[in-house]
Amino acid sequence: MNSTRDIEALIEMMARLPGLGPRSARRAVLHLIRKRELLLTPLADQMQRVAATARECVNCGNLGTTELCDICTAEKRANGQICVVEDVADLWAMERGGVFKGRYHVLGGTLSALDQIGPEQLRIPRLVARLTEEGVNEVILAVGATVDGQTTAHYIADQLEGRVRLTSLAQGVPIGGELDYLDDGTISAALNARKEI
Amino acid sequence: MNSTRDIEALIEMMARLPGLGPRSARRAVLHLIRKRELLLTPLADQMQRVAATARECVNCGNLGTTELCDICTAEKRANGQICVVEDVADLWAMERGGVFKGRYHVLGGTLSALDQIGPEQLRIPRLVARLTEEGVNEVILAVGATVDGQTTAHYIADQLEGRVRLTSLAQGVPIGGELDYLDDGTISAALNARKEI
Repeated sequence: MNSTRDIEALIEMMARLPGLGPRSARRAVLHLIRKRELLLTPLADQMQRVAATARECVNCGNLGTTELCDICTAEKRANGQICVVEDVADLWAMERGGVFKGRYHVLGGTLSALDQIGPEQLRIPRLVARLTEEGVNEVILAVGATVDGQTTAHYIADQLEGRVRLTSLAQGVPIGGELDYLDDGTISAALNARKEI
Repeated sequence: MNSTRDIEALIEMMARLPGLGPRSARRAVLHLIRKRELLLTPLADQMQRVAATARECVNCGNLGTTELCDICTAEKRANGQICVVEDVADLWAMERGGVFKGRYHVLGGTLSALDQIGPEQLRIPRLVARLTEEGVNEVILAVGATVDGQTTAHYIADQLEGRVRLTSLAQGVPIGGELDYLDDGTISAALNARKEI
């Protein structure tokens, strides 16, 4: 009966993705249908492949297609540093920075009594176990500067205290940032952490 | 070797969609992987289905999964009116408006000497043939108010002149539009087409 039902269903599914709405989903679907061989079929195939193979690294929680992720299997990344992040997106952001050469530990969220997310859900026992297993000497807490993020950071710091060097990312003015556009908290933090030139 | 290669490839493909960039593609892919059963697999299946079945209506150029689209097969839409639009997206926009009860003719672009798009590529001969085949008495030229759109409209008007009533969409202030935000051309057009209250 309705010959556009399949196309409409696809638009509705695309519109549910973060960052897309009904209008951009319609544009994206039309674009995909126009470039069917070049875009739509390969994209569908790739989604099937990722749906079938993507999994979390059993050691650090990073996303990959193997039991242990590339970073956990890379010998040269066992430099005694573990960077604790909330999310795989944060791990990717750190990797794009290209400065950190150690390993990661992906919490997969923050502690939250309301959502019943406790230390086990965030792989914190696994993090504690890694300290001895991997000979870790520094844990960098790179969690968000939110209330939940800082609560989680304090809990982890309590668990690890005295066993390892604990650090956090510096707070201050972003590179290329204009003072006029910064919030008051960032300006205060940058002033408090000012450095000799 | 690189266990995130498949995921990265998927992000790159998503980032090529209109309206998405690298950052939003990463967010979308992480979201899809987290809701694998609920979103990723169904979306991939639906894309396969659309890639296999989507086609243009042989009569009007609308998208669907059948030789003739729903609108061309609906008897009650044969009211003697054809609305000529550039694109399927424009047809969808007209349908959302819900006022037009006739049929459509989707050009699939505008005349362009540079891109070698002539009347045949835009289904204009098919439009001319439909006038007698479907007993059309009015053609509404609902093409964009761009130079290319208006050139195309003039060409079509030349072809159909004297055979059918030719109209175009009214130009003026959009519903809910504030004068302060309108361009000068729209304000002039609205003033010239002013109506008695």
